[in-house]
Amino acid sequence: MKDDILLSRRTIRKYTSKPVDDELLNEILKKGCRASTTGNMQVYSIVISKGEDVKKELAPFHFNQKMVTGAPVVLTFCADFNRFNRWCEMRNARPGYDNFLSFITAAIDALLVAQTVCIAAEDEGLGICYLGTTTYMAHKIIEVLRLPPGVVPVTTVTLGWPDEYPEQADRLPLEAVIHHERYQDYAPGDIERLYSQKEARADSQQFVRENNKETLAQVFTDVRYKKEDNVHFSKILLQVLKDQGFMNQ
Amino acid sequence: MKDDILLSRRTIRKYTSKPVDDELLNEILKKGCRASTTGNMQVYSIVISKGEDVKKELAPFHFNQKMVTGAPVVLTFCADFNRFNRWCEMRNARPGYDNFLSFITAAIDALLVAQTVCIAAEDEGLGICYLGTTTYMAHKIIEVLRLPPGVVPVTTVTLGWPDEYPEQADRLPLEAVIHHERYQDYAPGDIERLYSQKEARADSQQFVRENNKETLAQVFTDVRYKKEDNVHFSKILLQVLKDQGFMNQ
Repeated sequence: MKDDILLSRRTIRKYTSKPVDDELLNEILKKGCRASTTGNMQVYSIVISKGEDVKKELAPFHFNQKMVTGAPVVLTFCADFNRFNRWCEMRNARPGYDNFLSFITAAIDALLVAQTVCIAAEDEGLGICYLGTTTYMAHKIIEVLRLPPGVVPVTTVTLGWPDEYPEQADRLPLEAVIHHERYQDYAPGDIERLYSQKEARADSQQFVRENNKETLAQVFTDVRYKKEDNVHFSKILLQVLKDQGFMNQ
Repeated sequence: MKDDILLSRRTIRKYTSKPVDDELLNEILKKGCRASTTGNMQVYSIVISKGEDVKKELAPFHFNQKMVTGAPVVLTFCADFNRFNRWCEMRNARPGYDNFLSFITAAIDALLVAQTVCIAAEDEGLGICYLGTTTYMAHKIIEVLRLPPGVVPVTTVTLGWPDEYPEQADRLPLEAVIHHERYQDYAPGDIERLYSQKEARADSQQFVRENNKETLAQVFTDVRYKKEDNVHFSKILLQVLKDQGFMNQ
């Protein structure tokens, strides 16, 4: 791998029309499947959508983010106990994976594979973007991709050759997210210190102005990630887990 | 990065007594924090436990797997809205992140960071092992690490210099986990084909004999990942989400 690939990465939302070669994609996916997996069960699936029709069907459920139809490849990473359950049933074994813990286990599997695929792709010069909309609209993505019971989409990644070179996103200082030995809770002075750089950035201040808010935090709570939306999509997601057979405990 | 680091990796459960240098660990964690994060909120925390006392306290809640006290570093990756909520409250913003969707959002953040940290560590020659016990015993890990409301441990990684070079774990053929355009469900013939190599392995057959079972699948359903345990730990985990303030929807 290129030396600074992890440190220098940026999310890519604009791709050239050049397709991603099948052989290259397979190589990347193979690397992804070397990621750790609970008990070596590999309880995940990856749906590779390249066709215009499927991408167009998916687009509204990703709130029409341009990457969905603009990227040559859309990867939907799913928590998947369906395949494992079918194997068990054919082998005189009674699967007990229709519960919440099993969903979380499978979601962890899917996410470790997703991130490994992304790193392998970036190492080849490809660009990626995660779509958080997957957990909001899982019920609709299930319909489009025809996911059977035992399968829940957890995240989506768009993939292609970069057609932009954006600024790298800012991050909080490392000390903001690490704790030594045990968790040290944040005093007001800590929060002031840890968020000061972020708040002072020109792009943050512009963001506040554009949204007619007083503070950057209000842009998150009142505009981007609102309570009413979170509550609404929480209910839907819990219903999805029930419908897909993961809430029998 | 070394070229074949993703393809040649193996999980390491035995470590030398050589400590992991602080500077190296920080570099690895910094790379981890370049991973994608929802809306750049960074709603995760990493608890770094190196002290014998904390590791000994954690060990029973990881079912005394030898890696916990045997590794120089234990990393607990947490879904964390606590820091973000505190920031919002100090900035006249009303956080609405006490719901299930927000937990999933934060868990995704934490897992993408975890896997990036693991890859960065392996690229330095370090060995890692994920502990799936974290979601079983989250309530106890919360006590040991003193995690406040808004924080839930999602996975744990042990880290150190390898003192073994185990065989690489087997994986299903790539075609088992990928689907083109939409999900193609598995017919019995598919399952036979996809699991045949795994079942034919000498270590799989030994595993079946040692556990006095008829099939490999039964080792999973009757011994390793039993329904009664999954149901039990599902109830506990859902209670943890409630107790930590993520089930108000």
